Amino acid sequence: MCAAASRGPSSRSAEPSVAEGAGKAGQRLDGAPTARVIVAGASGFAGALAAQLVWRHPHLELVEVTSRSDAGRPLSDLYPRYRVPLELAELDPGRIEADAAIVAYPHGVSAPVVADMRGLGLSVVDLSADFRLGDLPTYEHWYGEHGAPDLLEGAVYGLTELHRDAVREAELVANPGCYPTAALLALAPLAREGLIDDVVVDAKSGISGSGRGGGDANHFVTLDENTTPYKTEGHRHEPEISEQLRIAGGRDVPLTFVPHLLPLDQGELVSCYVRPSREISQDEAEELFRGAYENEPFVEVAEAPPGVRDVRDTNLCRIRVVSRPDRLLVFAAIDNLWKGAAGQAIQNLNLMLGLPETEGLE
Amino acid sequence: MCAAASRGPSSRSAEPSVAEGAGKAGQRLDGAPTARVIVAGASGFAGALAAQLVWRHPHLELVEVTSRSDAGRPLSDLYPRYRVPLELAELDPGRIEADAAIVAYPHGVSAPVVADMRGLGLSVVDLSADFRLGDLPTYEHWYGEHGAPDLLEGAVYGLTELHRDAVREAELVANPGCYPTAALLALAPLAREGLIDDVVVDAKSGISGSGRGGGDANHFVTLDENTTPYKTEGHRHEPEISEQLRIAGGRDVPLTFVPHLLPLDQGELVSCYVRPSREISQDEAEELFRGAYENEPFVEVAEAPPGVRDVRDTNLCRIRVVSRPDRLLVFAAIDNLWKGAAGQAIQNLNLMLGLPETEGLE
Amino acid sequence: MCAAASRGPSSRSAEPSVAEGAGKAGQRLDGAPTARVIVAGASGFAGALAAQLVWRHPHLELVEVTSRSDAGRPLSDLYPRYRVPLELAELDPGRIEADAAIVAYPHGVSAPVVADMRGLGLSVVDLSADFRLGDLPTYEHWYGEHGAPDLLEGAVYGLTELHRDAVREAELVANPGCYPTAALLALAPLAREGLIDDVVVDAKSGISGSGRGGGDANHFVTLDENTTPYKTEGHRHEPEISEQLRIAGGRDVPLTFVPHLLPLDQGELVSCYVRPSREISQDEAEELFRGAYENEPFVEVAEAPPGVRDVRDTNLCRIRVVSRPDRLLVFAAIDNLWKGAAGQAIQNLNLMLGLPETEGLE
Amino acid sequence: MCAAASRGPSSRSAEPSVAEGAGKAGQRLDGAPTARVIVAGASGFAGALAAQLVWRHPHLELVEVTSRSDAGRPLSDLYPRYRVPLELAELDPGRIEADAAIVAYPHGVSAPVVADMRGLGLSVVDLSADFRLGDLPTYEHWYGEHGAPDLLEGAVYGLTELHRDAVREAELVANPGCYPTAALLALAPLAREGLIDDVVVDAKSGISGSGRGGGDANHFVTLDENTTPYKTEGHRHEPEISEQLRIAGGRDVPLTFVPHLLPLDQGELVSCYVRPSREISQDEAEELFRGAYENEPFVEVAEAPPGVRDVRDTNLCRIRVVSRPDRLLVFAAIDNLWKGAAGQAIQNLNLMLGLPETEGLE
Repeated sequence: MCAAASRGPSSRSAEPSVAEGAGKAGQRLDGAPTARVIVAGASGFAGALAAQLVWRHPHLELVEVTSRSDAGRPLSDLYPRYRVPLELAELDPGRIEADAAIVAYPHGVSAPVVADMRGLGLSVVDLSADFRLGDLPTYEHWYGEHGAPDLLEGAVYGLTELHRDAVREAELVANPGCYPTAALLALAPLAREGLIDDVVVDAKSGISGSGRGGGDANHFVTLDENTTPYKTEGHRHEPEISEQLRIAGGRDVPLTFVPHLLPLDQGELVSCYVRPSREISQDEAEELFRGAYENEPFVEVAEAPPGVRDVRDTNLCRIRVVSRPDRLLVFAAIDNLWKGAAGQAIQNLNLMLGLPETEGLE
Repeated sequence: MCAAASRGPSSRSAEPSVAEGAGKAGQRLDGAPTARVIVAGASGFAGALAAQLVWRHPHLELVEVTSRSDAGRPLSDLYPRYRVPLELAELDPGRIEADAAIVAYPHGVSAPVVADMRGLGLSVVDLSADFRLGDLPTYEHWYGEHGAPDLLEGAVYGLTELHRDAVREAELVANPGCYPTAALLALAPLAREGLIDDVVVDAKSGISGSGRGGGDANHFVTLDENTTPYKTEGHRHEPEISEQLRIAGGRDVPLTFVPHLLPLDQGELVSCYVRPSREISQDEAEELFRGAYENEPFVEVAEAPPGVRDVRDTNLCRIRVVSRPDRLLVFAAIDNLWKGAAGQAIQNLNLMLGLPETEGLE
Repeated sequence: MCAAASRGPSSRSAEPSVAEGAGKAGQRLDGAPTARVIVAGASGFAGALAAQLVWRHPHLELVEVTSRSDAGRPLSDLYPRYRVPLELAELDPGRIEADAAIVAYPHGVSAPVVADMRGLGLSVVDLSADFRLGDLPTYEHWYGEHGAPDLLEGAVYGLTELHRDAVREAELVANPGCYPTAALLALAPLAREGLIDDVVVDAKSGISGSGRGGGDANHFVTLDENTTPYKTEGHRHEPEISEQLRIAGGRDVPLTFVPHLLPLDQGELVSCYVRPSREISQDEAEELFRGAYENEPFVEVAEAPPGVRDVRDTNLCRIRVVSRPDRLLVFAAIDNLWKGAAGQAIQNLNLMLGLPETEGLE
Repeated sequence: MCAAASRGPSSRSAEPSVAEGAGKAGQRLDGAPTARVIVAGASGFAGALAAQLVWRHPHLELVEVTSRSDAGRPLSDLYPRYRVPLELAELDPGRIEADAAIVAYPHGVSAPVVADMRGLGLSVVDLSADFRLGDLPTYEHWYGEHGAPDLLEGAVYGLTELHRDAVREAELVANPGCYPTAALLALAPLAREGLIDDVVVDAKSGISGSGRGGGDANHFVTLDENTTPYKTEGHRHEPEISEQLRIAGGRDVPLTFVPHLLPLDQGELVSCYVRPSREISQDEAEELFRGAYENEPFVEVAEAPPGVRDVRDTNLCRIRVVSRPDRLLVFAAIDNLWKGAAGQAIQNLNLMLGLPETEGLE
């Protein structure tokens, strides 16, 4: 049975939540119940893709899409490519009829919305940073006051490959940042074995990672034929990566992280330069990574350097490890909107709802 | 002698206006006087390039750059590539010390500024549409009320190759739109001979033609891997092209003009599909174009289809004519910011000031 | 029952051709038989996508992929993004075990291969131009000698929306060129009503339309930040469009067609400038197009200009019609590799095999 | 006096080598003698730009352009943008009439050509790697047998800012690789002070750095919307950087260097992650770099992260240093074809010929 059914408060879901729309009915394969999902903040890049992935998912029903800035507009006006035939609404917690929510609001704005959703009993995947850091002072240092600190403890960090069992049991999942997703998939197998003395992560992202706003900063003419580092004094994904490396390996890992913008739309590559605690041969390194990911549906250990184009519009992370005399190099490519945001949100939601992990993502 | 010297009001230019900056002094070739130029609206794409072209020009001195939105910022913050070491100022007509002005304000905003400049005796090249159309009702139909209609009659339409002698005598030049520049260079040799029964102009422009604003519309993610027509019901460059074709040939030329956006920065291509009034062979067509442009420093008649990359960062227009059974095809490529805006402004200013037409543009 | 089953010669398909691969089995929804498909020429852009679409199709089994130039290499080496785990083979007609073929060889090379396939009883969709033109002399003028002229008469021109019933009955379908696909979907509703006096088609294509070869011509540095017309003296898609317009409307339609290259990967826009035989209002024009396409799963009649990004990685054609005083403008956007090649091939194959037309394309 | 005059063998330059072409005469400023320059290998990206820079240089005369693959073609067919009106010739050492040469042949091919040129008494700037490494075994390890080992000792490594005095006296200059140029300008100020314990250099280059060939590898469709590391096991620019760091600081500097391709034309960014030998504050770091480069015409020490667009089509290197707790970050952006190849070649040639260092590069 779909986990969502037992979780949705019965007073609000007395009727079976099976989709009835003609267009979607054709996708129902087996009469299994369908979880009703709201996507809050669907006018941003990640939220819009999340809405599309829910829309085309065989066991999820997209019941509502909301937006603070574009309420009243059809989502397909903003994203014709996604062809989701719903209109963006103002979020009104009083009339939510759903089993689960994907929340794609900005950091800080998200926490109170998540609290409302949780109060209504919904399973929530939050795409903001609000519940990613277990350490409240670290959060406050980078993001300011927290809007729902009491929910922090129950939140699960949703890098699925690292915390699958916890995600399965979670009612609130903090979806990781795009850079941490790629960096941690690249580094976790080494961190777990205590093999990292220190690491430099040089990250490169397509422009969709910058979000829909930005004025001059995201103008085509600013970014075309350009590449530039940014947040060179420190980026807030750095403590997120550090905390998870510490959790994985049980000790602090000195980390230098610098992001760069690339003149492309979707795609992210992290190049990790590890000073290993001992010499590791190419064979051992490859074996370690293959072992770590052999049963993972969304991680590929490649034999050549990965390109972001190899994973575009997929939920895959493609990894290559290279042993050099004093360094271990690990390269990981993802689509920042998929595995780095909306795709991983569906992956997590599938687990939370008792659905097959890969459903709707292939 | 530099024409500007005689035109600048003596009370405001008592001292010789020879530049003294060390960096520029090395570029002074011959001790000739230098015209002092203000660029108003230098924070936009065309205005900023105009400022740079003035800055590096051997006989122009860039005395001031102004901006409505970015006053107080160094121009090199906005356009590091241009390396113009001046700070943007608020425009204050009361303290202008210049012989000439390039005005790059938006349509409607420009006319009153131009009127002020002319009142001070400056030679003016205006990059807006405010003085391009000789017919006031047509202007008002497309742009609204006119801010300085009394100046219309004295203004010269600055498509240099078509109106060189008038530009030389002008004190106010209306710099053509980027699309009209390319389209008219492509069509004028035919229009003059009465050879056009009707014409379709399919125009394609890089994104810098859209200007610095635009929010979503100019966001990298909107435009990358995309192309789209716009203003399909009618674009205000259409009456500008029509009026000039009528002037060139003495009769109305039915015209359909549609612009498209391309995912590139600078560059513009017009593809003109002419229904000729009589059959014209390939040889005759080529001879007509070569004859029309043989002495033009900035027009190339090519033997292969032109690419916008061929003319990037130049003031050149590259043209190819192809005769087909029932059509004459003319393709013209320019850099929309150079020949389509700032480059042609310098070309016109050179003529107005008695300088060699190509100076500062090679 | 799957049409393919009856068509495959029994001697070669004694066993039921249900796929047995574990990875694919999960996609079998209902136990229906599966047609076995070979993709010949799978190392080119269109062939590779065709292979992927067959691979992920619920009722097609990809049994073989061949290549003249890359035999022996895994297809995923060339196209990691598609994740088809087959190795490219030399084509050997003697050991083909399939019910249907998609042939993606170059013009001229294709015809004899198609003849072999047809000799073995396979249903064939040919992506080359070899069977598109009904008129042999026209073919020979543009492409040279024909390799299998006796098959011409039985071939069906596979612009599905125009010839659906014939495709359903066909054993050999000539998949249209990418430009004709977009141009004919834009123009057929008008041609059928005899409304076109003449038409200019200005077409713009992403680089994948140029194919995998090309040397300098397809080098990133040649194409980046560039746009250029090509084949301006005449492109061989022109007679293909003309023939189909004549078939649709019963009379010759004067046509000028010029293609241009855009600096993007997948995507194609045609801008059609029709001189109508009588005045047609905006309302009438929109009604005509909506009526023509209201039941079409892959054609969208839009209310705003289409962008190629709107249809990227889909089998959709998005059309906008605009009435102007003396012209009717029709813009159509497709993904040149999908609706312009491999997607439409699947659409046709579905019909030929008795499968739902949209299967595997959503 | 122009150094070239004294160097050219008198028998071959009996006549004064002042250019007589009308187009160039206008650029002669002062009647000074002009050095006659041949560009060998002008059909590649760097060679073609070198040809253009010589062509437009006020005191250089471009007397010949050669090509192994494209002899007989006008250079402007291959590079219309550069407008150099010469035809590519086969290189024939027997009829060279020049004072200096820029050689832009591939590694290995270059050395014997350089030897010929030197035998004729020409001053030579070689763009290949053949004379960059002082250590012959290292050369042979990375490039194979050396074609003119006896010339190695007299060759000067032409990173102008590091070896200006030696370049001034040199008759053979080995122009640095593009990556070493950016990396060494970023690291030399630190290396000289012995401040680098180890360093990771993550380098990112536009596609022109890959050269004109490449087939699939340089196809637009391969590179568009992509980024990928390459030569991850080791790139031959690494020993070049190491050798120069050792020369600068008098000790070995552990170095990890990995290059990446970006979807843009010209531009290169290196991100250097230095483990410093002692703590260095932001102020000290900035002061160190400002001091090192305060009089350099082509190095900018910036206060914000550099973008490659900031230096496009210039000979500038733009550097930013950032101090973090355990790392010193140095970012350097150049145009790989200018400062990374042809621009620096002119800079070196100016010095070798006694001309102002910046001439022809502003």
